[in-house]
Amino acid sequence: MRKPMRKPIVSSTETKTAINEEPIKEPRGARRKRKTRQKLLNAALRLMAENGMEGVSINEITEEADVGFGSFYNHFPSKEAIYETLQEEMIGQFGDAIDAQLALIEDPAEKISVALRHTMLHANHNRDWAKFLIREGFSIQAMSSGLGSRLARDVSQGMISGRFRKYDPEIQVLSIGATTLAWMSIQLQSPTANDEKNFGERLVQSSLINLGIAEDEASQISQVPLPAAIEDDSL
Amino acid sequence: MRKPMRKPIVSSTETKTAINEEPIKEPRGARRKRKTRQKLLNAALRLMAENGMEGVSINEITEEADVGFGSFYNHFPSKEAIYETLQEEMIGQFGDAIDAQLALIEDPAEKISVALRHTMLHANHNRDWAKFLIREGFSIQAMSSGLGSRLARDVSQGMISGRFRKYDPEIQVLSIGATTLAWMSIQLQSPTANDEKNFGERLVQSSLINLGIAEDEASQISQVPLPAAIEDDSL
Repeated sequence: MRKPMRKPIVSSTETKTAINEEPIKEPRGARRKRKTRQKLLNAALRLMAENGMEGVSINEITEEADVGFGSFYNHFPSKEAIYETLQEEMIGQFGDAIDAQLALIEDPAEKISVALRHTMLHANHNRDWAKFLIREGFSIQAMSSGLGSRLARDVSQGMISGRFRKYDPEIQVLSIGATTLAWMSIQLQSPTANDEKNFGERLVQSSLINLGIAEDEASQISQVPLPAAIEDDSL
Repeated sequence: MRKPMRKPIVSSTETKTAINEEPIKEPRGARRKRKTRQKLLNAALRLMAENGMEGVSINEITEEADVGFGSFYNHFPSKEAIYETLQEEMIGQFGDAIDAQLALIEDPAEKISVALRHTMLHANHNRDWAKFLIREGFSIQAMSSGLGSRLARDVSQGMISGRFRKYDPEIQVLSIGATTLAWMSIQLQSPTANDEKNFGERLVQSSLINLGIAEDEASQISQVPLPAAIEDDSL
């Protein structure tokens, strides 16, 4: 993976915080409450990335977050609820941030390239996020919602516009998604192996070729400087 | 997935047993020992498929196998040893059985089709095996050994012979492997979803197209009747 060319911009979460909350000077109680919520989310992400939702108890989450057991229920009614919040905030908001960038790009092939490379970059910076995504990744839900549905949308649009070869969009999405998760998995195990072999760029290139883009053009599009990194330091 | 056209043949394990041991009338002690070993392997497969090697203790394996704790060490020196035996016997022997079939096939495209379809069929019949493989699947070892290395061999041979388009065999293997594991994962969660959508056949077809085979021919090759099912009932 190439390094981003420009400085990372703030994520959508941080933007919202910066615009909506900080200037108004958040009351101390509200700030403390928000911090506790964030601690619980961080802890749940770490634990659920490692052991899945089933393999984690509320008690373990509050222990890991270093907050009282009871305060969990001030923020989330159940373990399922914090898990859903994670999906929404960690995956949904990342998807929204990507989508905001894709809206500025016209070429469907470049959209796919930017989306995949940002996803790999984000996984690189956030191991728990990557693990959580790998765990989520092959579920049927993931194919029909989350990042999979966004990829499906971009692949379909490229086929409709005639930019991509019209061929089995569902299998194309499954294959691109699965290969990206395999990349993440190798990255988690051995960052250097991935870097040396330049798997990320080759993965983008090969995905574009499978969608019908010529080899040279696919190579060039897979190396266009990324608009900006989407880094969410809030988690 | 299509059902196999002929009756399942016995696996290489069973063949060996049938030829080498049963006619000589195995002594009771040896038979009991072999059964205990098999119980331990079955138990380890079930547990390690679910929780990984790290997440399983020897005590849990002997409990699950319903044998005494100490008898574990009559068969395996360590947890790592039983894990390696599982890899070797469950994955290696399956790979050998596939290879025996592939040796009878000349066309590299048909080889890929038969190997992928047998793998999906086997996963269908053996959920623990499928889970174990998914868990193994994205490791770097899996890419350079096990079923991944066999796939890599077949992809390379097809490129060398000119049957496949010469393009980034490593990424092709990563992508075909990852997509097959995604298929397994969906199959484990919802067999009907996979059947209805016919993902298996489409996956084979799409893999062949990505390797450079024309759409019609890829479709036809993905539907050739399988030589025989490789079912290993010993585990």
